[in-house]
Amino acid sequence: MEPRTLKGFRDYLPAIEAPRKAMIRAIEATFECHGFVPLQTPALEYLETLAGKYGDEGDKLLYRFADHGARDVALRYDLTVPLARVVAQHRGELQLPLRRYQVAPVWRADKPQRGRFREFVQCDADIAGVDSAIADAEVLCAGLAVLDALHIDGARLHLNHRGVLFGLLRTAGVADLALQLASIRAIDKLDKIPAHAVRAEMVGHGVPDEVAGAVLARFTTERPALEGLDAALSTASDAATFEAVARLRRVVELVTAAGHGDRIVFDPTIARGLDYYTGLIYETRLTDARVAGIGAVMSGGRYDGLIGLFCKDAIPAVGISLGLDRLLAALVELGLAADGDARVPVYVTVFDPSTAQAALGLAGRLRAAGLRAEVDAVGGKLGKQLERASKRGARVAAIVGPEEVAAQTVVLKDLRRGVQERFALETVTQATREWIERPD
Amino acid sequence: MEPRTLKGFRDYLPAIEAPRKAMIRAIEATFECHGFVPLQTPALEYLETLAGKYGDEGDKLLYRFADHGARDVALRYDLTVPLARVVAQHRGELQLPLRRYQVAPVWRADKPQRGRFREFVQCDADIAGVDSAIADAEVLCAGLAVLDALHIDGARLHLNHRGVLFGLLRTAGVADLALQLASIRAIDKLDKIPAHAVRAEMVGHGVPDEVAGAVLARFTTERPALEGLDAALSTASDAATFEAVARLRRVVELVTAAGHGDRIVFDPTIARGLDYYTGLIYETRLTDARVAGIGAVMSGGRYDGLIGLFCKDAIPAVGISLGLDRLLAALVELGLAADGDARVPVYVTVFDPSTAQAALGLAGRLRAAGLRAEVDAVGGKLGKQLERASKRGARVAAIVGPEEVAAQTVVLKDLRRGVQERFALETVTQATREWIERPD
Repeated sequence: MEPRTLKGFRDYLPAIEAPRKAMIRAIEATFECHGFVPLQTPALEYLETLAGKYGDEGDKLLYRFADHGARDVALRYDLTVPLARVVAQHRGELQLPLRRYQVAPVWRADKPQRGRFREFVQCDADIAGVDSAIADAEVLCAGLAVLDALHIDGARLHLNHRGVLFGLLRTAGVADLALQLASIRAIDKLDKIPAHAVRAEMVGHGVPDEVAGAVLARFTTERPALEGLDAALSTASDAATFEAVARLRRVVELVTAAGHGDRIVFDPTIARGLDYYTGLIYETRLTDARVAGIGAVMSGGRYDGLIGLFCKDAIPAVGISLGLDRLLAALVELGLAADGDARVPVYVTVFDPSTAQAALGLAGRLRAAGLRAEVDAVGGKLGKQLERASKRGARVAAIVGPEEVAAQTVVLKDLRRGVQERFALETVTQATREWIERPD
Repeated sequence: MEPRTLKGFRDYLPAIEAPRKAMIRAIEATFECHGFVPLQTPALEYLETLAGKYGDEGDKLLYRFADHGARDVALRYDLTVPLARVVAQHRGELQLPLRRYQVAPVWRADKPQRGRFREFVQCDADIAGVDSAIADAEVLCAGLAVLDALHIDGARLHLNHRGVLFGLLRTAGVADLALQLASIRAIDKLDKIPAHAVRAEMVGHGVPDEVAGAVLARFTTERPALEGLDAALSTASDAATFEAVARLRRVVELVTAAGHGDRIVFDPTIARGLDYYTGLIYETRLTDARVAGIGAVMSGGRYDGLIGLFCKDAIPAVGISLGLDRLLAALVELGLAADGDARVPVYVTVFDPSTAQAALGLAGRLRAAGLRAEVDAVGGKLGKQLERASKRGARVAAIVGPEEVAAQTVVLKDLRRGVQERFALETVTQATREWIERPD
């Protein structure tokens, strides 16, 4: 049988999984630092929980099937809809506002391409239960702090608001809500397909060609700045639009006060393809031209209507989602992925069968002190074992021959310096710790 | 729409997910300490990769479906078969012996019951590429050290060897290999169903009734000890059986030398239901009678033929797998699950809209120093905010009113002691750290 993975799926071997895991730990620590607590949901949901939440295009990408009980089920498509279900289902047990983070894989039967996989890990932080500029800002701060924690300098968070989009569309002459939503889904593709294709898509949905042209001019050549938004929107002039502008400005102020102002930029072309966003929306783009085409690496927004689909109460919420595997793919392309620490610092050799117990005993002693150690499980000549130790990236090899067993000693060999020295069993743990930490 | 989870699946809310995550981190750290490195595989595999590896009963429990490209796919059933595929597929890139660990969910359409879920996380450590008593012992030491790391005293690892099982079956009169395997699958159920039902299952497979009775007497009443195994097996008398006994003894010696001898016990009734085991096998049972019925929480064994199903080379391997969710369920039943740290130690209040920026700025400062802090996102009266702070489990509330903004100060309030004190902005990080660490 030919061993193979499905297209769009991949194995993460230790050399890349070790830094990937380090990224996950840094992300989780940063979310926790911002007051978010962990929550986990099943990979499989009732199909009806997920269907209809992501628009027609999203619906088609759901991995769905009938389970053993003939129930229609689907693999989760994102972490946001399951969170909405959880908040509705357990709202008696949960204290609102809830700040939860979740790191978990999601599945989309999308066309695999650069930075786009059919299985990928999302790292989400959301605040459910409050609609406020502070909640928006806190979520953005958590996301931006993650970029700092991952030492990613070349990234900008592009910020917009659905209310601003609606206002700009109205002032350009798109009055119908369904047409506005279809236009938003088309505008969302401006960074992926040419403007004329976006225009054709809008016209296909029923937007008059010259109106579509005016809309796209607005988003591509005019591009109002945050400062000029009130003027640009003057003909829309409804309260909701100006509230949207005010919220945008307030969020920028707050995120700036928290020290992340240099990372955010207002961008009226940000639209987000998903239907459930109602307020602030954002996407994070890498600034390095070599990976600009890889798409958004951290996105999200406010979705005040989603939880209400699962319960009577309207519970507002806002969240941010980092696409771990796309970001990792970009870092690998840029040569910025951390070196995988798939090594082991201490390698305990086995001199001969008569000393194997002593070797295991020594390893137990080192590990109990928190040192990472491996015992050679292959055996054979000491030279071969030392070669394996070097291949495993070990700094120190420990040797316990019959003489050492009798004298209750251990020989340590520094594999980079080539020197070796004998230690009493009681002092070997401390010596090993010092040896693996000393410079070459 | 009624929000609901599928039967056999569950949400882990923060109060239980926080300690669950702490367990995962302790398990991963312990595996790393034993020289294992992380590896991750997709949740979905080609059906042919998984089918036929777990016996007929396992095959029926696979979640399988046709994907968008009409490929037959299945959700992974365990982490062992995917590892075998990975080793075969990437053997040019991997350095053998490979010590890998993986923590990931698996899916089985099993009948949900106490401690048995349809989705559950497995924590596996395996050594592929070598067949030796040291490899067996190293895997066992890693598993036993995990029990120590999780502070689980009441657990015993029951050890057996497929070769001993085959020898005992042969001496009892079951000579045919297919009947031996069917008998092993039946014997594996001795801790779940009554002996007469196991006997009926063996007879159903074609074992004569009196032979089945003799076999079960051997496993239930006679139960040879490790010391008496050679005598008990004397009529089997083939080299493979005595090698199996010798391996068992050697592994016990090595695990004992590593300091874990008090946790392991030879148990001839351990059979393991899966077909792929070829050598050492083991199951870990909790000793507390209240949760004895929950089944094995950490199991595994040697599977020297599995990788060879995917490539020409016969690559031996041994592994151990901890069932995180079953263990957690048992700890919850025993009242031993760690308290979920779903709290936040520092709660930054927002005095009024004019001071919100200062509050965010303070939070940014505290978080940059590694402190876990949350900014109140709801607003309103300070008293209400302090109530929310207490509900979130915060130890310290920070208050920045207009006076504090003007004077570049912050008031800290100890929510347990009830006292408060004003600090200069430059010293507040250090003061906060001291306050959250001081005793009540």
